[in-house]
Amino acid sequence: MGLPKNSGIDIRCKYEKGNRNLITDVPGIKVGHVTLIDEGKGIHTGVTAILPHSENIFQKKVMAATSVINGFGKSAGLIQIDELGTIESPIIMTNTFGVGTALNAVTKYMLEVNEDIGNTTGTVNCVVTECNDSELNDIRGMHINEEDVIGAIRNCSDIFEEGGVGAGTGMVCMGIKGGIGSASRIVNCDNHNYTIGAILMSNYGVSGNLMIDGKRVDTRNIPESESEKGSVIIVLGTDLPLNERQLRRVAKRATVALARTGSYLGNGSGDIAISFSTSNIVPHYSEKDIIETKMFHDGAMDKIFEATAEVVEEAVISSLYHGEYVKGIRGKEVYGLHEYL
Amino acid sequence: MGLPKNSGIDIRCKYEKGNRNLITDVPGIKVGHVTLIDEGKGIHTGVTAILPHSENIFQKKVMAATSVINGFGKSAGLIQIDELGTIESPIIMTNTFGVGTALNAVTKYMLEVNEDIGNTTGTVNCVVTECNDSELNDIRGMHINEEDVIGAIRNCSDIFEEGGVGAGTGMVCMGIKGGIGSASRIVNCDNHNYTIGAILMSNYGVSGNLMIDGKRVDTRNIPESESEKGSVIIVLGTDLPLNERQLRRVAKRATVALARTGSYLGNGSGDIAISFSTSNIVPHYSEKDIIETKMFHDGAMDKIFEATAEVVEEAVISSLYHGEYVKGIRGKEVYGLHEYL
Amino acid sequence: MGLPKNSGIDIRCKYEKGNRNLITDVPGIKVGHVTLIDEGKGIHTGVTAILPHSENIFQKKVMAATSVINGFGKSAGLIQIDELGTIESPIIMTNTFGVGTALNAVTKYMLEVNEDIGNTTGTVNCVVTECNDSELNDIRGMHINEEDVIGAIRNCSDIFEEGGVGAGTGMVCMGIKGGIGSASRIVNCDNHNYTIGAILMSNYGVSGNLMIDGKRVDTRNIPESESEKGSVIIVLGTDLPLNERQLRRVAKRATVALARTGSYLGNGSGDIAISFSTSNIVPHYSEKDIIETKMFHDGAMDKIFEATAEVVEEAVISSLYHGEYVKGIRGKEVYGLHEYL
Amino acid sequence: MGLPKNSGIDIRCKYEKGNRNLITDVPGIKVGHVTLIDEGKGIHTGVTAILPHSENIFQKKVMAATSVINGFGKSAGLIQIDELGTIESPIIMTNTFGVGTALNAVTKYMLEVNEDIGNTTGTVNCVVTECNDSELNDIRGMHINEEDVIGAIRNCSDIFEEGGVGAGTGMVCMGIKGGIGSASRIVNCDNHNYTIGAILMSNYGVSGNLMIDGKRVDTRNIPESESEKGSVIIVLGTDLPLNERQLRRVAKRATVALARTGSYLGNGSGDIAISFSTSNIVPHYSEKDIIETKMFHDGAMDKIFEATAEVVEEAVISSLYHGEYVKGIRGKEVYGLHEYL
Repeated sequence: MGLPKNSGIDIRCKYEKGNRNLITDVPGIKVGHVTLIDEGKGIHTGVTAILPHSENIFQKKVMAATSVINGFGKSAGLIQIDELGTIESPIIMTNTFGVGTALNAVTKYMLEVNEDIGNTTGTVNCVVTECNDSELNDIRGMHINEEDVIGAIRNCSDIFEEGGVGAGTGMVCMGIKGGIGSASRIVNCDNHNYTIGAILMSNYGVSGNLMIDGKRVDTRNIPESESEKGSVIIVLGTDLPLNERQLRRVAKRATVALARTGSYLGNGSGDIAISFSTSNIVPHYSEKDIIETKMFHDGAMDKIFEATAEVVEEAVISSLYHGEYVKGIRGKEVYGLHEYL
Repeated sequence: MGLPKNSGIDIRCKYEKGNRNLITDVPGIKVGHVTLIDEGKGIHTGVTAILPHSENIFQKKVMAATSVINGFGKSAGLIQIDELGTIESPIIMTNTFGVGTALNAVTKYMLEVNEDIGNTTGTVNCVVTECNDSELNDIRGMHINEEDVIGAIRNCSDIFEEGGVGAGTGMVCMGIKGGIGSASRIVNCDNHNYTIGAILMSNYGVSGNLMIDGKRVDTRNIPESESEKGSVIIVLGTDLPLNERQLRRVAKRATVALARTGSYLGNGSGDIAISFSTSNIVPHYSEKDIIETKMFHDGAMDKIFEATAEVVEEAVISSLYHGEYVKGIRGKEVYGLHEYL
Repeated sequence: MGLPKNSGIDIRCKYEKGNRNLITDVPGIKVGHVTLIDEGKGIHTGVTAILPHSENIFQKKVMAATSVINGFGKSAGLIQIDELGTIESPIIMTNTFGVGTALNAVTKYMLEVNEDIGNTTGTVNCVVTECNDSELNDIRGMHINEEDVIGAIRNCSDIFEEGGVGAGTGMVCMGIKGGIGSASRIVNCDNHNYTIGAILMSNYGVSGNLMIDGKRVDTRNIPESESEKGSVIIVLGTDLPLNERQLRRVAKRATVALARTGSYLGNGSGDIAISFSTSNIVPHYSEKDIIETKMFHDGAMDKIFEATAEVVEEAVISSLYHGEYVKGIRGKEVYGLHEYL
Repeated sequence: MGLPKNSGIDIRCKYEKGNRNLITDVPGIKVGHVTLIDEGKGIHTGVTAILPHSENIFQKKVMAATSVINGFGKSAGLIQIDELGTIESPIIMTNTFGVGTALNAVTKYMLEVNEDIGNTTGTVNCVVTECNDSELNDIRGMHINEEDVIGAIRNCSDIFEEGGVGAGTGMVCMGIKGGIGSASRIVNCDNHNYTIGAILMSNYGVSGNLMIDGKRVDTRNIPESESEKGSVIIVLGTDLPLNERQLRRVAKRATVALARTGSYLGNGSGDIAISFSTSNIVPHYSEKDIIETKMFHDGAMDKIFEATAEVVEEAVISSLYHGEYVKGIRGKEVYGLHEYL
């Protein structure tokens, strides 16, 4: 439920929070998890799926963009988003060595739903993102199965858990238990309320660097790590009618939140933001060459940018707030944020 | 008039040519030159101005994009086009060391027309492009004056000359007299005729590499140059309602034409394409945050891409076709294409 | 063996060809195929693997870069090449829906060879490229297995076949049988001979657009396709000590060859070039923060660019020259180039 | 002198400061100002010049890169830095409408020193950056003259002032007097001390958003501005032997500091970072095609990234710390930071 009111954590909030304070406050967006834990085998991993809307996403693509903040990452499907400005599949988050399996699973899922793909029309671009959960998880074991990926898609719902669940199960962020975090903000434009939502999987940063609302959190008992490993994947969804160029500008503002929570965009961190708008739908088939669309006046973008920085910052903190103690592979122990507050 | 019917040059033409076979076939676009020649002083240079439309361009910006094909160039104003997706000034072509003066002149022109700039609103982004005409021109003399730039803007008209005029005065392309070339093509979309026009200043390539419609032109008596110097600036205008992302895709296709005429995109060549749409106007001031716009269905883009390659290829050949013998600085002699046909 | 001397095809050749006229003329580079054909089931697909050198590629990465010419493609691993400037895995070519399986296979291959990956060091970035072979192949059947990918790696050798083999088995290029093509060129720098090699899988372009050395090939009996589908993946390897920025510049020049063979970079074509240098090796572990390396003087790059355009153009033609008649899925028939000469 | 020890401002400092705590702690780098103030005429502007080293910069170029954080800006010369990876002129900072004049002045300066430019060799790429100082300055008056630009170059020295001087004279940052700020940090690599220096002109952000070391500064009496206007130009110089790709990564980390001081990268802010290394010199003329160079092992980059974030953050605060009350055009009053501490 995002960062709840009684969390005891007070971060700046200039824009109103959405009802659930989750990305699913944007009408149509759904999120689902599959969590895989087997302590004996050192398995702490999973899959998270995000559906931009509940109709046929291949037929009704959402306008989208990416920002590769630091490209030490193995996410698949980003290049076509940049070229064509659309997402046409569920968005999957998983661990680094699960990308191949997730690609296979989503491809099969899309083929089943769409008989034209690879037959009377072209192929499909599946978006699969990843972080390295090897600090806690036996990533070499490649424990993600295609059914787990399909399961996460099937589990998609308006309500979902945060913290060490789904793809976030084995994530560690600045020495603390990381994972899935989400939040939402309301922005008023032309006398209408629009929602910006964020969901992310936090796995970045160096021990001891965490800042909450500008204050460095005392995490003395965490051994300092030598380098910024891991990564962070940020997905931003909105019903604001932003176009591809503007969605890229929005995705870029996720960096602001990373910096404010303590990241300096470390070498080994694959920091990637993806943004999409559910208001600008691009059909796969069109009888007409020219289609009507909407965009924002760039002169009015500042509120969108500021709300984006805010919603991502809260989603990071929420991912940590919902984290709990885990003993992972090789006996590695990680604690939830609340142990340090 | 582009490549005239009686030119004797037969290049592939799948799409119908516009009325004048010039970029000014796109309604609203105008072009003007100022030519500076003083053989005794080795002056062979000038300015060419392109007006995307005849209204207040700062108030009514045109959607636009760029493609930096090879960035060995000093053009100004490109970064903001990429960020905001608009052009808000006349587009100037001149020589490399004329960019500063052209920036000053266009800035003053814009300030005179718009009292709000730098006062109650922000500043203005002036687009100035350049090629190095030092093979024929005393570029070190910096002979372009602000009045020349203003003059080119004032001279803007539906009809304009090609070849060694305006900014093209001192240009050399593959050892032959280069300069200004233009052409246009008609594309039918949704039962409506749209026009794509190109204007360019050709100054690229190595002697002996010229190809016309795939055939290498025999230019044996031109001494072979060692390296690809110079540059080429390509401006594409259209009344097709393409958005910023699509305009960038179109600008990228100018490369196809360069390759077909003999370029391998040499190290020292600043090859830059700029594209804009007169159908998607973005107002400087907007009462509403959200504005209506149009885009093309990407699945129907192939005809646009193919016509773009075709119109740029013809504009290159037209720039050479209209070139005449020049004896430049240091006694350098260059001949027009017709001497080799 | 590239385009053999007795091919009857005479394309411009300014630079000397390597011994085999294959990318394997660059010392250390090896190429292997696995070909899957079952006419009854409509299976015409496969895998091609490229080894930049024969030592541990994770431990000894090659400097590398990419150029996304048109991003309608699903290749994996490109983002990290851009960020870190290295390739650390074999490069795989396969069909679009084989990317997931290839990622899984290469990951397992790398894990087996390197016990540190995902354990005491980070993960590994596997490079998998693809084209859509659905015109001839039952791509929906997802017939590529992990063993096929490992097989292609195991088959890597100095000598390899071209045409409809490996990943090229089901490819179609401008209405003609496409597939794997390769060529090499020698460039003399500082009195030393260096080699630039290209290998590509040709699957792009519109029927009737093929040009060989500037001449349009008469392919009247091929039904004209409506749009440029398919894709082309171009891998350039060299022992020239180019750095990452320069390798990107080289990769960009592949576009010149595509244009010269008839492409206008169609909407639906995922045109991607990858380049690497076997002379600039970056170790995974380094005792020192600062390492010695070499680069080219950009002022001397023109011969590299020109040779690149030439070697890619020949590799395209060679891919077609080696193509043979195929009757694919849905009865689709495609002929080799020699039927039209 | 950067932020002095007795400033009363305590921001995080993990890395040792250089001797002067200025970018000129990097051996060879020099900075000079010309300040133009005429209160009666509303003139509050100027020029700042940065010399990467004291030898012929055209003959001995420094490796360089850029990061366009937000491209609402009119800086000149950035495209060629990206293509060729070098800076070959002094770097100028001035106001937005001074770019043309600065280009003219630097061009003439370069022509005077180098008789080969535009004659026996190509042209020269002059780097001119800008912010909009119209909040305090009569920017429409275009008061920068070529002599001012040359003067700033001539004034270059190891010691220079910060705050409202040179190009920083009319700048406003988050409602407070902005301007020139600088700082430096020492990083130990391979048992050798290297220096990273930053100089910037701060003109960004919204009133009330200033954060120092995570704490929001109480600036209640400043009227809140509606949108983030202005810009920030950040120049990073170092004697670390980073290559072009790595310098780009470093330039990108300037964003971290902007975010930490209160920016959300507003729409109207032209936020641009330029970085260069004085240790990797690229000669204009080279007898050899292949040249020796050095690079950093990317696995050791984290300390560089962290120090970059730190040095830019301190440079921002230093620019504000050195600001003093100004009454500008239209009676606009701005106070220095110390009034709010």
